Amino acid sequence: MTAADPAMLAIDAHGGDHGVVVTVPAAVAALRTDTRLQAVLVGREPEIRQALASCRQAPSDRIQIRHAEDILPMDAGPATALRRGRKSSMWLALQMVADGSAGACVSGGGTGALMALGVKQVGLLPGLQRPALMAWVPLPHCRTAMLDLGANLHVSARQLVQFAVMGAVTAETADRVENPRVGLLNVGHEDGKGHEAVREAHAALKELRLNYVGFVEGHDIYSGNVDVAVCDGFSGNLILKASEGLARMLVNEFRNALSSSLASRLGALLAGPAIRRALAPLDPAEHNGAPLLGLKRVVVKSHGGADCRAMTRAILEAGREARRGVPDRIEASMQAFQLETEA
Amino acid sequence: MTAADPAMLAIDAHGGDHGVVVTVPAAVAALRTDTRLQAVLVGREPEIRQALASCRQAPSDRIQIRHAEDILPMDAGPATALRRGRKSSMWLALQMVADGSAGACVSGGGTGALMALGVKQVGLLPGLQRPALMAWVPLPHCRTAMLDLGANLHVSARQLVQFAVMGAVTAETADRVENPRVGLLNVGHEDGKGHEAVREAHAALKELRLNYVGFVEGHDIYSGNVDVAVCDGFSGNLILKASEGLARMLVNEFRNALSSSLASRLGALLAGPAIRRALAPLDPAEHNGAPLLGLKRVVVKSHGGADCRAMTRAILEAGREARRGVPDRIEASMQAFQLETEA
Repeated sequence: MTAADPAMLAIDAHGGDHGVVVTVPAAVAALRTDTRLQAVLVGREPEIRQALASCRQAPSDRIQIRHAEDILPMDAGPATALRRGRKSSMWLALQMVADGSAGACVSGGGTGALMALGVKQVGLLPGLQRPALMAWVPLPHCRTAMLDLGANLHVSARQLVQFAVMGAVTAETADRVENPRVGLLNVGHEDGKGHEAVREAHAALKELRLNYVGFVEGHDIYSGNVDVAVCDGFSGNLILKASEGLARMLVNEFRNALSSSLASRLGALLAGPAIRRALAPLDPAEHNGAPLLGLKRVVVKSHGGADCRAMTRAILEAGREARRGVPDRIEASMQAFQLETEA
Repeated sequence: MTAADPAMLAIDAHGGDHGVVVTVPAAVAALRTDTRLQAVLVGREPEIRQALASCRQAPSDRIQIRHAEDILPMDAGPATALRRGRKSSMWLALQMVADGSAGACVSGGGTGALMALGVKQVGLLPGLQRPALMAWVPLPHCRTAMLDLGANLHVSARQLVQFAVMGAVTAETADRVENPRVGLLNVGHEDGKGHEAVREAHAALKELRLNYVGFVEGHDIYSGNVDVAVCDGFSGNLILKASEGLARMLVNEFRNALSSSLASRLGALLAGPAIRRALAPLDPAEHNGAPLLGLKRVVVKSHGGADCRAMTRAILEAGREARRGVPDRIEASMQAFQLETEA
């Protein structure tokens, strides 16, 4: 695999529920925010050109188009993607990363398809069986990296350890957190708690030169006590989606309460700016862009329903990770820890 | 096991972080709310008497005291509880349920200890290997029953099916929901999603005469689309605690925002009543009292940190479940479904 220009991003223009209407203006916004970035928009050229034409001040010298005939449907599973995705925008965007013409790929397409095509084309780092999907969970003054989110439903102790290392490297490089605190999610913090895989991983993590803080519980994801929270993909997926549901419900209830009477509407008018300021950093859209860790190059999954602002975040996230060489750092850490554990 | 008076509750006076200071006034409050109930306060008699003396209008004709010498520490695990708990308030409270002198037991003591002693003394219903812990998750206009919450870290398909039946029976009897909608938590709602145990349970649940709505995702816990959400104890525990952490964080941020400036403080004053009205039903304390399902009698676990109001809720919940004979109904449903699946 040849070294790619980390500033060059391949963007799956048809990934996500809204397609080019979101991805193209998001790419323009990202490139205007980070002027070092360049983008190849991969998809049906006429549609992309049309979307580009409606963007004001598009930095056209940093934007290219690569035509792809097909679009993978959002619900295409891994098998469909592998069998029939060969001409799709997702396939070609990943191919550009694989052949070194782009430093990172961003797609809002289906997770299963992205994972299968990512593994097939970009390939896994040595010693890894499967990639892991990581999300940034927003907190008031920081964020917690959480993985896995559904790529691995059953995990071994070894996989949990790998997640911990990959999460720590990514948090360190993406957020410039020195020695990120890594916690292993469990039903209690005492040594004997949990099932065999978490207990074995717990013992192994204590031996590594990671800033491993031990077992943590569900609420620690939101306490700011850890920078990285590690768990199997089944639990991680349920936790993340339950959190999204709960946050939506609470914010809705608040909104309804604030519009329920004349007094509360007046109160909302007065307190509105402060409330918006408090909630803004907690908006998941601000932290969109889940890296698919364990691949040889940067591949970032955007939320399927992302709007332009959220998609812009995912593109900027991919740019940061590519520039900081997250996959190479993960590989180096894996090797270092491998040596350590074998010594 | 002789039939017990369902109105007679055995209350572990030392269960929970605050002991008699919370349990005794909570018992008084519960008995004043539900005048059919009677309580036996189990614990160190002098301490209970003292706490009772400071309660105004205690219905002393409906309160008894049963002396217990010992207190099980909150962190006592199952082994410690079984080995050294014989003179503890928790042990004696459960014994009263087992020997028919009480219709239900309430304790805010450690979950592991309560489960171990519950199984040993009260016993499991036929065909069950382990009990499941169920929580009521508050929504604006209803609540979702979620189980298991950590009693069973690894579950089989058969156990997930049993959880579904037990949850449905409890939701139906406790909340008078007709034909409660039961969902199986998974990483997606399509048939092929998830690991083997959930897929097998999904197939089995479709065959039962339950109102089974199929796979649901994390956010559905808060959508009001299901009355009962079923999962393994590892995920359930993480989801519940993550939700608690997130809710606490969001409410704190809101509170901080509302006190951050003169305008927002004025706004809070105006909107305060509406906000409090909206948040009140979502307070977990209002839904305290997690039934330990699968035992032959009603055993309800209160949150260890419960205050008087929350503990009162748990006691009232135990009274409701005892009166409606939840364990007998679970047993009957289990048998009915057993016949169905064997036919």
